[in-house]
Amino acid sequence: MEFSSKLLENAVNEISQLPGIGKRTALRLALFLLRNPEDKTTSLTDALRKMREEIKFCNNCHNISDVDLCEICLNNNRNHEIVCVVEDIRDVMAIENTSQFKGIYHVLGGKISPMDGIGPNDLKIDTLVEKVKNGMIKEIIFALSSTMEGDTTNFYIFKQIETYHITTTTIARGIAVGDELEFADEITLGRSIVNRIPFENSLKI
Amino acid sequence: MEFSSKLLENAVNEISQLPGIGKRTALRLALFLLRNPEDKTTSLTDALRKMREEIKFCNNCHNISDVDLCEICLNNNRNHEIVCVVEDIRDVMAIENTSQFKGIYHVLGGKISPMDGIGPNDLKIDTLVEKVKNGMIKEIIFALSSTMEGDTTNFYIFKQIETYHITTTTIARGIAVGDELEFADEITLGRSIVNRIPFENSLKI
Repeated sequence: MEFSSKLLENAVNEISQLPGIGKRTALRLALFLLRNPEDKTTSLTDALRKMREEIKFCNNCHNISDVDLCEICLNNNRNHEIVCVVEDIRDVMAIENTSQFKGIYHVLGGKISPMDGIGPNDLKIDTLVEKVKNGMIKEIIFALSSTMEGDTTNFYIFKQIETYHITTTTIARGIAVGDELEFADEITLGRSIVNRIPFENSLKI
Repeated sequence: MEFSSKLLENAVNEISQLPGIGKRTALRLALFLLRNPEDKTTSLTDALRKMREEIKFCNNCHNISDVDLCEICLNNNRNHEIVCVVEDIRDVMAIENTSQFKGIYHVLGGKISPMDGIGPNDLKIDTLVEKVKNGMIKEIIFALSSTMEGDTTNFYIFKQIETYHITTTTIARGIAVGDELEFADEITLGRSIVNRIPFENSLKI
């Protein structure tokens, strides 16, 4: 791509470093900002800068927060002894949307992925183990994605806390509600048979 | 979407105002910036702000430029009497990539589109008519997109400069190079028959 302006070229290069945004989309976004009044760009850049500079992470669960302890950890109506381990804040939002979980969270900030150079020390695993050691947790629910990286992370954490004899569970894998059996993949279908649940339980939600 | 942080929510709202970016993608981009070192965000916001504040438009053709006259308009090897009328800078880049055009451009900054509230006065049409009046132009090539808005814009400009008896042409519409006839739409195929060209001409590129 040949640009008639260095300023435009810089902006396009910077935008296209965001995940999933190529040069063409970046150019479209840059031209959109140029066509619109200057305060649109200012409010965008201010919001990004302010977020990056001032955002805090909850001291307890590492969820993104504007204060030292997030609303969920501050809520005394929630069960602080049941901790749901998730990858990032999007998973917290997804689970909160279900209104089915009354415990608290522990946000790892990713999953172990040697291919991407992410090891256990890059994640918030030690603080979780610490909480288990201190007897603050009765049950850990693993809610990482069902991938090799997710399973590795689950297993790594499990090994660290094995000796403390707390309950460890993982969210159920199975046929999604509304899905047809014939289109389900074999592994999911197989697991859903092996891990079948009492019929009465399926009536609860 | 419920956010645990007002700063994050603001950033996501701002990002999702960009065209083609929804809330989910915006959240993904915001989390990407949070995961990366702070200078990544700073260089992005700096590039955007600098672009929006400092960018100039060529005084002659309204192309985006860092100086008062763009490189194309400054180039004496190009024919300044043949002017290609385009919608925006992306069209200039596309045509320049073909290396087939040796004239200069006139960037309208959009096309007449009553549905989007864009009238002739929102575009750089008057400066084009002015150049025609002053006898600076021998041929105008219309290279707008082949849509109702593009055709309306072509026709509006044509009406303004009709009396000055300069050559007005439009880029050829037809079957794309490499395309199969049977899959071409009727209108394109019809036009390509009506506007057929001498066979020798097709050998030139």
